[in-house]
Amino acid sequence: MKRLTIEPLEQGAFAPFGDVIDTRRRDAQCVAINDGFTQRHHALSPVQTEGNDPILSVFETRSFGLPLQIRMLERHPRGSQAFIPMGDSGTRDFLIVVAEGDGAPDPETIRAFRVSAGQGVNFHAGVWHHPNIVIEGSQTFLVVDRSDPASNLEEFTFSDEVGPIWLDV
Amino acid sequence: MKRLTIEPLEQGAFAPFGDVIDTRRRDAQCVAINDGFTQRHHALSPVQTEGNDPILSVFETRSFGLPLQIRMLERHPRGSQAFIPMGDSGTRDFLIVVAEGDGAPDPETIRAFRVSAGQGVNFHAGVWHHPNIVIEGSQTFLVVDRSDPASNLEEFTFSDEVGPIWLDV
Repeated sequence: MKRLTIEPLEQGAFAPFGDVIDTRRRDAQCVAINDGFTQRHHALSPVQTEGNDPILSVFETRSFGLPLQIRMLERHPRGSQAFIPMGDSGTRDFLIVVAEGDGAPDPETIRAFRVSAGQGVNFHAGVWHHPNIVIEGSQTFLVVDRSDPASNLEEFTFSDEVGPIWLDV
Repeated sequence: MKRLTIEPLEQGAFAPFGDVIDTRRRDAQCVAINDGFTQRHHALSPVQTEGNDPILSVFETRSFGLPLQIRMLERHPRGSQAFIPMGDSGTRDFLIVVAEGDGAPDPETIRAFRVSAGQGVNFHAGVWHHPNIVIEGSQTFLVVDRSDPASNLEEFTFSDEVGPIWLDV
């Protein structure tokens, strides 16, 4: 049995999987616009859609319950997918689980991150990840992804040989 | 002197200018995904970038102070621009001002909308709008737009003949 360590979401650690959407990023260009009334933290992450149209959607997600056994991961080979909590949900943390791997996710590389209130996240195209994990109740996310989700989804279920992988706060 | 009426942000009224990002949209497709744990309010708005790369940025915007005299509007002819409050900012309303007009905004068509907590907004490409109006203090927004803002900005300042146009809550 394996229990995942939950890491804070920080660009250096998360860079292999995507980008952190956060004003505290020190690697991003920050420019004053609108007569100095706005600071633009510019281009924190690209939206990847392989030529298809990018769209804005909203996900309302209920908690799977914790502790959660990580039995599967999914990926979107043809586009990035960003999640930014909206409304009241912006004041609450959520959890993400990612892994490395080309044809299939490598269970030895699974990592969990805690997305803090005020942060968002953008998974790069092709990155294995678990559907968002809401800690309690339900949460609303702005999602920026590719217009044809059906042609852009792969799922992988871990075999029993891998052994149970658990996530809990 | 003219004082703008502030309308609630609702898709029917706002459709000529862009889209409302809101789970309460009744015109959008809603599908269950992730074994029923997520409702996907699908494709509430397209991201328009005229072939250039779409990007995710974050704006930190201070209030111009209210009442505010609307002296200018701007537009991005080559791309849409979405604003979704992040973190604590998601619990607060903000104001937007838009106008119709091709070569220049028509001052007779100026309208103001109140974006309620939990909502976001996407201005379609080429729509005249005022830089976001924060009611008090400062507010943080996820912004989804086009990667080259410098080549995608037109500004228009109203002549004195138009007379003062005021916005207040």
